[in-house]
Amino acid sequence: MIKSNELIENIFKSDKRAISRAISIVESNNSYSTKILKEIHKKTGTAYRIGITGPPGAGKSTLTNQLAKFYRRLNKTVGIIAVDPTSPFSGGALLGDRVRMSEIGIDEGIFIRSMATRGSLGGLSRKTIDAGDILDAAGYDYIIFETVGVGQSELDIAKAADTTIVMLVPESGDSIQAMKAGLMEIADFFVLNKSDRPGSEMAITALKTILMLKERKKDEWIPSIIKTVASEDIGTLVVAEEINKHKTFLLKGKLLKEKREENYKIRIMEIVELLIKQELWETNRKESLIRSLQSVLDGETSPYEVAEKLFNSYKNK
Amino acid sequence: MIKSNELIENIFKSDKRAISRAISIVESNNSYSTKILKEIHKKTGTAYRIGITGPPGAGKSTLTNQLAKFYRRLNKTVGIIAVDPTSPFSGGALLGDRVRMSEIGIDEGIFIRSMATRGSLGGLSRKTIDAGDILDAAGYDYIIFETVGVGQSELDIAKAADTTIVMLVPESGDSIQAMKAGLMEIADFFVLNKSDRPGSEMAITALKTILMLKERKKDEWIPSIIKTVASEDIGTLVVAEEINKHKTFLLKGKLLKEKREENYKIRIMEIVELLIKQELWETNRKESLIRSLQSVLDGETSPYEVAEKLFNSYKNK
Repeated sequence: MIKSNELIENIFKSDKRAISRAISIVESNNSYSTKILKEIHKKTGTAYRIGITGPPGAGKSTLTNQLAKFYRRLNKTVGIIAVDPTSPFSGGALLGDRVRMSEIGIDEGIFIRSMATRGSLGGLSRKTIDAGDILDAAGYDYIIFETVGVGQSELDIAKAADTTIVMLVPESGDSIQAMKAGLMEIADFFVLNKSDRPGSEMAITALKTILMLKERKKDEWIPSIIKTVASEDIGTLVVAEEINKHKTFLLKGKLLKEKREENYKIRIMEIVELLIKQELWETNRKESLIRSLQSVLDGETSPYEVAEKLFNSYKNK
Repeated sequence: MIKSNELIENIFKSDKRAISRAISIVESNNSYSTKILKEIHKKTGTAYRIGITGPPGAGKSTLTNQLAKFYRRLNKTVGIIAVDPTSPFSGGALLGDRVRMSEIGIDEGIFIRSMATRGSLGGLSRKTIDAGDILDAAGYDYIIFETVGVGQSELDIAKAADTTIVMLVPESGDSIQAMKAGLMEIADFFVLNKSDRPGSEMAITALKTILMLKERKKDEWIPSIIKTVASEDIGTLVVAEEINKHKTFLLKGKLLKEKREENYKIRIMEIVELLIKQELWETNRKESLIRSLQSVLDGETSPYEVAEKLFNSYKNK
């Protein structure tokens, strides 16, 4: 049996083994998960949450590491959640993790954890944010969520972060087009990494043009574009300063409170919907659905009629 | 008032104005939508559904147009649904549509429609698939869903298509990495477009390497890689042949039936969940959620406790 009170006490003491254990419990979604998350909630809200997203190979891990080292020099602690849209084809995440652990993970004030995204009921965002809460309750000053921006994940990350950074590289013309799909809306600022490469100025011009197209209200935050060469630690300080500037901006006008309130709203809605789905798709109802498929294939019943029947059976249970 | 019986009769007659109207009704999600979809269902199941996805700029529209022209030469009709992950920044879809309409849209046997993805309750896939059903009921032989693979959309498209094609270009090294996020699993075959460009052979080698990593069952379909230069209509015939090969493969072993059954299952589940969400988040319950946010921010109640309360209030209504 897990002594959950002891576990929770140890999280509050920032014990790395307890934190790891708690995140694993959240990942496996077992019955202790909700209990832990309820208990730790009262200690959350202090950490500042940073999201870093962008296309594969943009240098997200490198910047994350540099930022973590920078915060450590200021004697701040950092929790890192690296979100990996895993596929059965790739073992990259685990390997990368080990490399990173040896570089910064041995620092007492840094905690790193990779989380995979595939096949989890309720999706990635919930568990990632739950893990962020655990790090928050454990007293980490900064929490960095790092995720590849190729799926829904980058939109999820914006719901979890106070400041969202979108990272690009000069050669990713694709990336700028990909903004149509959402990166553009979520960026509090952009980082153009590998900015010593050719095409850097052109990429910045393209970005600025796109940014100018957006109508903004008076006093609205305007995303800037910061050049870095993360592999040589060039620009990290400017990124950290921009994070701080954005944080100050959010704190000035109750915007941080509003943002977090909105994020909690979305998160609670997702939890309710998950609870319902679990109950809705219990064995009998799922079997009834499967039995009806033949008549749908045969054109006798439409998907909408089957859906309404199942909906009514849930409501009138 | 819409005379929906007349509308449905006109869909069955393959009347383009009626089809357009019906898709608009489905998009606006008004009360006629479900009625229409129920009525037309009996006439669906005949069309063969092709999904084409890949990164922006891969040449999806061009290949779609070439395929459509090819099928027209065989005297087959083609319905095209172009799914656009719109952003407020982009008017690209509409413009592109007009250009395409002038090229192939005037052909009586081709129907083209763009559908935007943003901000629609229940997501894109449902409405896209509904629109596919309308084209199916209208008697189109082939339905092509074309979507940018930068979000959830490419996974949705695999749930709607009988054959899914993933398009890439040599220079998109990013794209191959992006496969970690799902493109790899959904491709029935790959098209390497702009294959006259440098890096083409290297891209194919990289793809083959990734494909070889996957364990396959005996008699399982093996995705091939087809080279095209869509802008010069090079390779279109090979693509059409591969579609046909895959179709024959699916038809041989009841696989098509199984695939469509699975797709119906997912679709019905989504409709049920949507019906529940609409009822769940009625004004009172949403207001109750919003009222509770302050105490969540203050650390007095956890998101999980609020969620459970809302869940119970829905169950016991």
